Order: sequence, then C-alpha cells, then structure tokens
Amino acid sequence: MTQWQRVAIAPEQLDNDIIRLTPQQQHYLYRVLRLQPGDRFIALMQPEWWLSELCDLETAQRLEMIPMQTELAIAITLIVALPKNGFEEIIRCCTELGVMEIIPVISDRTLLKPRPQKLERWRRIATESAEQCERQHIPTIADPLSFTQAIQTSHIHPYLAVTRISAPHLLTLPLPSPSEAILIATGPEGGWTPQEVEGATIAGFQPISLGQRILRAVTAPVVALSLLAGHYEIN
Amino acid sequence: MTQWQRVAIAPEQLDNDIIRLTPQQQHYLYRVLRLQPGDRFIALMQPEWWLSELCDLETAQRLEMIPMQTELAIAITLIVALPKNGFEEIIRCCTELGVMEIIPVISDRTLLKPRPQKLERWRRIATESAEQCERQHIPTIADPLSFTQAIQTSHIHPYLAVTRISAPHLLTLPLPSPSEAILIATGPEGGWTPQEVEGATIAGFQPISLGQRILRAVTAPVVALSLLAGHYEIN
Repeated sequence: MTQWQRVAIAPEQLDNDIIRLTPQQQHYLYRVLRLQPGDRFIALMQPEWWLSELCDLETAQRLEMIPMQTELAIAITLIVALPKNGFEEIIRCCTELGVMEIIPVISDRTLLKPRPQKLERWRRIATESAEQCERQHIPTIADPLSFTQAIQTSHIHPYLAVTRISAPHLLTLPLPSPSEAILIATGPEGGWTPQEVEGATIAGFQPISLGQRILRAVTAPVVALSLLAGHYEIN
Repeated sequence: MTQWQRVAIAPEQLDNDIIRLTPQQQHYLYRVLRLQPGDRFIALMQPEWWLSELCDLETAQRLEMIPMQTELAIAITLIVALPKNGFEEIIRCCTELGVMEIIPVISDRTLLKPRPQKLERWRRIATESAEQCERQHIPTIADPLSFTQAIQTSHIHPYLAVTRISAPHLLTLPLPSPSEAILIATGPEGGWTPQEVEGATIAGFQPISLGQRILRAVTAPVVALSLLAGHYEIN
C-alpha cells in the first residue's frame, strides 16, 4: 500500500464517490507522477484515507477506505512565537511529529510581523507535509494571534517551555492521558519576557523545561513534539 | 553568569593564564559585541568554562573556572546519511541536544558527495552552536565515511533507525545506562536499502523505530537526539 502516492482532497471536491481533481492535482498526478487513467492513488480526506483510481484527466473515483494509524493518541496544539527565520521548517517537522494544530503568536520579542500571504503558504506546507509523511489529519495553522490573546483562549493542560529559569522537565510531570488534549508553547529568540511568563502562569500554564541546554527558537518546538510523541507512542 | 558571551578558545591560544585572541575573536568581541578592555566573557576551553577578562585588543586573561552541567550523562554518537539539503541544520539542532560526535556517511541512496571545504564549514558550525547553547563539549564532526566503513568500526550499543519495516520503538528498548555510550544511525531520503539494513544488522545494529509517521532525513536525527536526551535527562 505504501507505494501509492497520497493527495489531499477537500470535501467540496467530492460528488458521491467521484473526485473532481484541481488543475494542480491533475498536473501532479499526470505530469509529475506520470500516472494514467486506471492508476491508483490514496486520497487523504480527513480523517480518512481512500484508495482511489484515476478515471480521466479531471476526475477520479474513490474505491475503498483504508485503515491507517499514523495519528497520535492525543491532540497536541503548539503555540509558537514566530521566529525570524525557520517557521516553515517548524511546520514541516511538527507535522511529521503528529501535531494537531499550530498557533503562530506575536510575542514581545517577536521581530517578524507576517504578511497575510504567508498564512496561505504555511497552510500549503502543512498540507504537503501531511501528505508526504502519510498522516490522515492535516494540521490546522491558526491565524496569528498576540501572545496575550493566545493564552487567554481556554486551554486544557497548557505548558510553557522556558529557559534560564527553574522549571521541571516536561517528562517528569504527570502528563494528561491519551484521548485528552495538550497544549505547549515555545518562545522566540531571547525567550519569553518575565511579563509573558507571569501572564501565562496566571492563565494556568505550567512552566516546563525541555532539557539542560539552551535551544534555539526553531529547535524547541521540534524537541517538544518529539518528547510528547515519544511519550504517547510508548504509553 | 548567563549574560556573559561565550567564545571557544583553542589550547594553543593559552599561555599560562593569558589568552591570545584570534583576529576573528577580536572582531567578534570588540566590534560585534562592543566589549571593551576590562569586560568579561566566558572562554570555552573544552571541557572547562573559564570566566575571562579582556586585557587589550589581542589578549584576555582567564580568571576562574566556572562549574557547568549542560552535558548529557551519556555520550551519543550520531551516524547521519548525508541528506541532499539540511545537514548544517542537523549539526545545529543535534549540538543543542547534546550530541558528542556526528559521523556523516555516504549511503547507497546518498546523492551528495561533499567537497572537502564542507568539512571545515561543518566543524565551524558545530563550534558556533556549542558556544550559543552553552555546552562544554564541542561535538566532533568526523570525516565522511561510506556506510559500510561506518558500520564496521566497532561500536557499543548501536541502533539503526528504520522506516516501513517493523521495528520496536527506541524508547521501548532497554537503553544503556548513563556513563556508557550509544550510537544511532539515521538514513537518507528514501531510507536505507535492504542491503544496508541487513549489513548493519549483521554488524550488531539494533533496528528501531522513531515513531509511527515517516520522518524526513533532516528530521529523523533531531527526533532521535530529542528522545535520547529526554530519556537520559529524566533517568
């Protein structure tokens, strides 16, 4: 099964079992992958995977649902203070690691104010990464928020990754059971300001450490997701 | 203490307690950081950290050793099949995560044959990253080897990260105790060939999984190091 290529199909592309391919998908399937009518691929239709067959240039038919288990048992939301560079790589890595949603935030020390076109690009990267790493769920990329807005939204089990202040290692804490949800926030270059740490703590965030060394803003979210994915895959 | 900048000093730069600064270090300390004679910084002199003071443009004096503990309890060596892009980012992230040595290897599916100048650049990146993340040890970047050479070198506790074939999750195995050493190998785009998996298994490598999703060649080493660093920091 793993030899089939995967393509994300939006709900509005489906009419009964017929998939109307977008021009980009037609190009990808026929030109890039060199498939032909009658050839098969996997349609990612969240949260399901469907074995599908190309009918003609513009349409395909979905044949049967394929049971897959590449999703984590817990829904992880990541709040990331937008780094100056490397946010796209964060999206790719964290998608591979099973993140459910990423909320980009503007913190006190964030230098980047993203242009609106960026959001579309980030969502496309999340979609492509989810296809590549064979996930059923495409991570949601939320509209950027200020850190203050982000922490005021109600969250279950929120954690705040901190450096240079004393905090327990994430894995030494009793983590929520699978089937629950967890949220983890990682900071910008230079870290959260003391005001941000205080605000988050008041909002119920548990400060945690990701290890004894200083991580860059682009490494910390990947480490956070690695630790959580590892924990929930073996427990 | 953490407000002081860190600079790696080679043994040959030291004459009693006087440090002879290289032109690059002079530029960095005086021009980039805008320090002045009398200002202090931390000299990373593996494996020690020394509080030091600038004397004049060309020299500094080391004052006292600073106790630090940012190193992992176990020595982790990483074998990485050179990816087409992103090896420098692997060096940065894995340095932050406490790797002791990185051995770049040319595998059957490796497309890149590195030029000799690359090695110098990689070592500089390891040095700069170790300074930034406040490590005492600068990871060694070995000369590139063929995968066959790399697995024939004797190793204690060698693991081989595999995808698409059945293998236990790294964290479900009994891992070596701290103070021992561990080696983990991650593959190229497209994964190891069946011949490589077989060769490594014969050479004593334990095949392991890093999780249920397919990781890119540039993500896998970071995840491997995250999982191991997490394990040894809480155990």
